[in-house]
Amino acid sequence: MVSSTNSNAGEAIEDKLQWLGKIAADPKGGISRLLYSPEWAETQRVLKQLFEEEGFSTGYDEVGNLFGRLEGTKYKDETVLTGSHIDSVINGGIYDGQYGVITGYFALKYLQENYGPPLRNIEVVSMAEEEGSRFSYTCWGSKNIVGLAKTEDVSALKDADSVSFDEAIRAAGFDYKKNPEAAREDIKSFIEVHVEQGNVLETEGKAVGVVQYIVGQRRFTITVNGQANHAGTTPMGYRKDAMNAVSRMSYAINDLALAYGDPLIATVGSIALEPNTPNVIPGKAIFSLDVRHTNKDALVKFTNEIKAEINEIAKLLGVEVDIDMYMDAEPVTMDKTIVKTIEEQCHKSNLNYKMMHSGAGHDAQIIAPVVPTAMIFVPSHNGISHSPSEYTETKDLGEGLHTLIGTLYELGYKE
Amino acid sequence: MVSSTNSNAGEAIEDKLQWLGKIAADPKGGISRLLYSPEWAETQRVLKQLFEEEGFSTGYDEVGNLFGRLEGTKYKDETVLTGSHIDSVINGGIYDGQYGVITGYFALKYLQENYGPPLRNIEVVSMAEEEGSRFSYTCWGSKNIVGLAKTEDVSALKDADSVSFDEAIRAAGFDYKKNPEAAREDIKSFIEVHVEQGNVLETEGKAVGVVQYIVGQRRFTITVNGQANHAGTTPMGYRKDAMNAVSRMSYAINDLALAYGDPLIATVGSIALEPNTPNVIPGKAIFSLDVRHTNKDALVKFTNEIKAEINEIAKLLGVEVDIDMYMDAEPVTMDKTIVKTIEEQCHKSNLNYKMMHSGAGHDAQIIAPVVPTAMIFVPSHNGISHSPSEYTETKDLGEGLHTLIGTLYELGYKE
Repeated sequence: MVSSTNSNAGEAIEDKLQWLGKIAADPKGGISRLLYSPEWAETQRVLKQLFEEEGFSTGYDEVGNLFGRLEGTKYKDETVLTGSHIDSVINGGIYDGQYGVITGYFALKYLQENYGPPLRNIEVVSMAEEEGSRFSYTCWGSKNIVGLAKTEDVSALKDADSVSFDEAIRAAGFDYKKNPEAAREDIKSFIEVHVEQGNVLETEGKAVGVVQYIVGQRRFTITVNGQANHAGTTPMGYRKDAMNAVSRMSYAINDLALAYGDPLIATVGSIALEPNTPNVIPGKAIFSLDVRHTNKDALVKFTNEIKAEINEIAKLLGVEVDIDMYMDAEPVTMDKTIVKTIEEQCHKSNLNYKMMHSGAGHDAQIIAPVVPTAMIFVPSHNGISHSPSEYTETKDLGEGLHTLIGTLYELGYKE
Repeated sequence: MVSSTNSNAGEAIEDKLQWLGKIAADPKGGISRLLYSPEWAETQRVLKQLFEEEGFSTGYDEVGNLFGRLEGTKYKDETVLTGSHIDSVINGGIYDGQYGVITGYFALKYLQENYGPPLRNIEVVSMAEEEGSRFSYTCWGSKNIVGLAKTEDVSALKDADSVSFDEAIRAAGFDYKKNPEAAREDIKSFIEVHVEQGNVLETEGKAVGVVQYIVGQRRFTITVNGQANHAGTTPMGYRKDAMNAVSRMSYAINDLALAYGDPLIATVGSIALEPNTPNVIPGKAIFSLDVRHTNKDALVKFTNEIKAEINEIAKLLGVEVDIDMYMDAEPVTMDKTIVKTIEEQCHKSNLNYKMMHSGAGHDAQIIAPVVPTAMIFVPSHNGISHSPSEYTETKDLGEGLHTLIGTLYELGYKE
């Protein structure tokens, strides 16, 4: 397909990403495009215009998800959907979300120009929200598409300026769905193209990742209660040192994670000690544990084993420990047929690709339980995302588009 | 001597401690008696009066150390000194410092009443300052007594209200020594009685501790630079996790300290992670290490070994580490002859005592290199100090006095 022009295609994508990014440029760096903000509304407006310039049918749903559509000639009640979210984190980059929308746009444009109208409808979506950066609610866009968004979960939420979700959605000219549980029944498949937000593809020198699973996550807050005491006058044998306990627990977490091997990951990302002073033995420690795996049984097995180890360490050191699980999200499997189709596109174009999983959450994991879904990743330079330094090479941007075009052709133009 | 009345003596001490404490009572709890504050000046004033009521000769030195004296009849240029500091930390307890002063007062009173004037002068001192709680300078009182205080080290210091040391010392009616390097040459021995500020005596059921050494201390700030990354998308093998490095370093510190055994102690008391967020791999960690030992060679050997281990761990994990030593205080040995005299007093009264070291710093460690010095400890309930909850049982307060009286008698009344 566009193989000989992937670099050129990448440059075209990069241009459009920069152009869209400028609308939400943050004086403090990168882009900040929060749900239903003026920058958000303006971005959706110019995208709608962009879609219309190519002759796509366009329209918003009730909550502000924007769709651009190539009408199918034969299977008019069947739609192949691609796209991603258009909102960003505060001071985010121009690739996270935007890339999936713009790549969808270019794919539809290419298919229409080269193959005319498809048998099934092919749509690109610029979803309203995924990040949860304005209101503490994630994936508002995709949850509405599949009928999983609940008005009562968001209506009372307030943003950092005390503006309510109610006010924000109406100010942007949208409203809640009249029938929140209704899902679009015409959507037969969904493909999300996204930057990896990790360093696996770059480290392994791969251009494209074919996602097979999105990990399940369990997050814990672990509190250790020891005894604060004078660091100079308390012999080692008389201590109930909360930091020593955390060290041994964190060490055990890391060792067990290494023993399990990929795709198990476990992270101690935050810690707070009391009193946190060089010459006092820490009496209390609170630390976080984030565990992820593509397989639910493995996730449960690991967390049970590490909880037992943590309790054992606490007992040995004479400290109290409390392990509180505050998040338990199940792993999601991508649709095997679509995954195989994507893989075939990679084979056809002799692409250096990798079958992989996503360690981060995405709209695809909301849609997957309702609609056959898959994801295509491109590399993130140094694994950086949610930062103005987010970057993907133009050649890789082109490879992602190329893979999407082939996949949409198979799904939309073939019987 | 006072063996049959130790409980009564303890009650008398407790009464006087409460009485002195009221002068510096802090509405937020405990006592706050900062150097040269009105509470400090009032406390020295009432102590002077108390000393004078017993017929002690009294006087301040230039910086505000208060002395009360039984004049010697024979060796008029030889003085046996006892006492401690009168300042406190903010929201401190009534035993730290105060107990050494009040016990000195009761010892002189008892000796005078029962044995008349001594051969050598015996003095009780209420030293101006030890804690460094108002200005960032410790042991101002004892350093002046032995000629080690330097005017230029303190004059520019400011307290939390921006009052300079210069202003504070003059407002209290005192001034710097005209000849800062002059030490009192008549002082032939110093005995400081103090609460242990640890839990060794209580845990082992001992009434009195005879201090043989004050530990040397080395303190370090250790900085680990790894790489911050998404906790979900970075496989275990691709991480440079600063918290994992700290865990393994802290574990190694604790293990090596346990292997060395008493009196080596090593504490990781504080840690700061960046960004310190549950779903981000920590890119940077700064933690503290406090190491103490009574023997300098052992202290140096331990710190060299642990530095090598820390560097090894950093190398293994691919993180950078910087180890900065910001404190290096040498251990101090108590005078063996006075220590033996104290031990004999404990034997005589069949006291359940312990030969031990001090893990905390004291005025005694300033004075010891210049004057033969020793310390007597009494238990701290639960090892607590620098807190309104600081507590020592009245019986133990009495045992400390009893031991001091016997020692002063040997040093002041015997040829």
